[in-house]
Amino acid sequence: MSADFRHRVRVRYGECDSQGVLFNAHYLAFADLTLTELWRSALPGGYAAMVASGTDMVAAEAHVRFLAPTPFDDALAIELAVTRLGSTGMGSSFWMARGEQTLAEVHLRHVSVTAAGGAKTPIPDAVRTGLAPYLAHAMVAGNAG
Amino acid sequence: MSADFRHRVRVRYGECDSQGVLFNAHYLAFADLTLTELWRSALPGGYAAMVASGTDMVAAEAHVRFLAPTPFDDALAIELAVTRLGSTGMGSSFWMARGEQTLAEVHLRHVSVTAAGGAKTPIPDAVRTGLAPYLAHAMVAGNAG
Amino acid sequence: MSADFRHRVRVRYGECDSQGVLFNAHYLAFADLTLTELWRSALPGGYAAMVASGTDMVAAEAHVRFLAPTPFDDALAIELAVTRLGSTGMGSSFWMARGEQTLAEVHLRHVSVTAAGGAKTPIPDAVRTGLAPYLAHAMVAGNAG
Amino acid sequence: MSADFRHRVRVRYGECDSQGVLFNAHYLAFADLTLTELWRSALPGGYAAMVASGTDMVAAEAHVRFLAPTPFDDALAIELAVTRLGSTGMGSSFWMARGEQTLAEVHLRHVSVTAAGGAKTPIPDAVRTGLAPYLAHAMVAGNAG
Repeated sequence: MSADFRHRVRVRYGECDSQGVLFNAHYLAFADLTLTELWRSALPGGYAAMVASGTDMVAAEAHVRFLAPTPFDDALAIELAVTRLGSTGMGSSFWMARGEQTLAEVHLRHVSVTAAGGAKTPIPDAVRTGLAPYLAHAMVAGNAG
Repeated sequence: MSADFRHRVRVRYGECDSQGVLFNAHYLAFADLTLTELWRSALPGGYAAMVASGTDMVAAEAHVRFLAPTPFDDALAIELAVTRLGSTGMGSSFWMARGEQTLAEVHLRHVSVTAAGGAKTPIPDAVRTGLAPYLAHAMVAGNAG
Repeated sequence: MSADFRHRVRVRYGECDSQGVLFNAHYLAFADLTLTELWRSALPGGYAAMVASGTDMVAAEAHVRFLAPTPFDDALAIELAVTRLGSTGMGSSFWMARGEQTLAEVHLRHVSVTAAGGAKTPIPDAVRTGLAPYLAHAMVAGNAG
Repeated sequence: MSADFRHRVRVRYGECDSQGVLFNAHYLAFADLTLTELWRSALPGGYAAMVASGTDMVAAEAHVRFLAPTPFDDALAIELAVTRLGSTGMGSSFWMARGEQTLAEVHLRHVSVTAAGGAKTPIPDAVRTGLAPYLAHAMVAGNAG
């Protein structure tokens, strides 16, 4: 069974633009910090431990849908699911909401690389095992890549 | 004939992450500031004049492909084309390069809204006329939206 | 008796520079968001309510001492004290620590202004009353300004 | 004779806060990027070359005076002077202006450290020589530190 991952992030004053709402680039930053929290839950030692063990994950693609503006000081509820775990690639989706209203969706594709040289490398078993509980149902059968 | 729009942005130290390269969220910020430069070229008074005249443009969708990392202090050459000018929607594409190598592509979709209430509204004729020279060839026949 | 105010902020990946530590400008952003939390505790409706009631606080001066680098993913413990409450001016100090070690000190001076025009105006009584519990002992006798 | 160093930086939309003016923390970021430009002028290879040769400069103290707000899209004229060159310490001052009006002053103190371990180390002669032309008159006789 898949377990969604949840994190809350409050919108800071300096993250808002002149319209008084979260500046669009920061939605990617919010996705990134939610991933950091996922690593903390999925792996002993978190993201830093993965890098120390020789593997890093770099963003290869991002897709954001901005559905409604997020005002200053709101605490966004972010739900994260791992949507794909390929041999070297990982997909993740983020739904950012206030109450019942989804304000933004972010979909990311990461590639596993060597921390030293940045060459593509298989996702380590420890990472794969740690992420498995967060893998969305429908995606379990997805092909590698 | 379409005229591409070009702008250069140098990567700042504080914009790099621990890997010493431009943090992924900043590619959206780079696209946004290039759009500001486009407004300056396309409209007398630039973006501020458009907002003052009652219309704003809000980001509705973003798609980023991260092709290679951008190191600190590099001056990215950003090429921008307006890819669609619908009745209320606008598409734009950005290619960010170092020499011959494209490091990232960003594709944005904006919606024209009233500056006051944020309701969808047609793109003003003055904006449409100002943007026309930057509209990519193949997109001229594109349907409205 | 003065009650110090405490808040924790975790250092995000995108906030670190190439040295893998919190970029210096972000210490001011951390102080600012801690102030937002202080408003939330001190005033019903928080910062937004103060602005809605016609008064804003703008930063006039900042002094930062960077004592040691703050690594990625560390949760900084920030302690805040209001150090002065003058007629139109407010002083605040922030100590940012990891365990027993203070990593940075920030001292800010704000000025109370009208939210509309930005003209200097006395700090409203409601704000003064709300902030009083956080006023540091030694400063209670401080002169106005 | 001292030669002041000048750089222009345009305020980006995403750097403004809800008041439509440059968010206070970004003044430190603007000072930092102006220093990067100073390194480029003062040293062959710029900041990266200094780090590659084994020495880094870390911020130890910052003092900012916010004199007037800086609106979106304004091009700040930043004037920089090296105010002190001690044995291991360096002082720098930044005046950020629009036309005749100074909007902010930033004063920084940096310490020279080994790039590897971060231990205090004398400023290398090549750096000292490169910075000398930018040293303000009155400071030439300043004591080391």
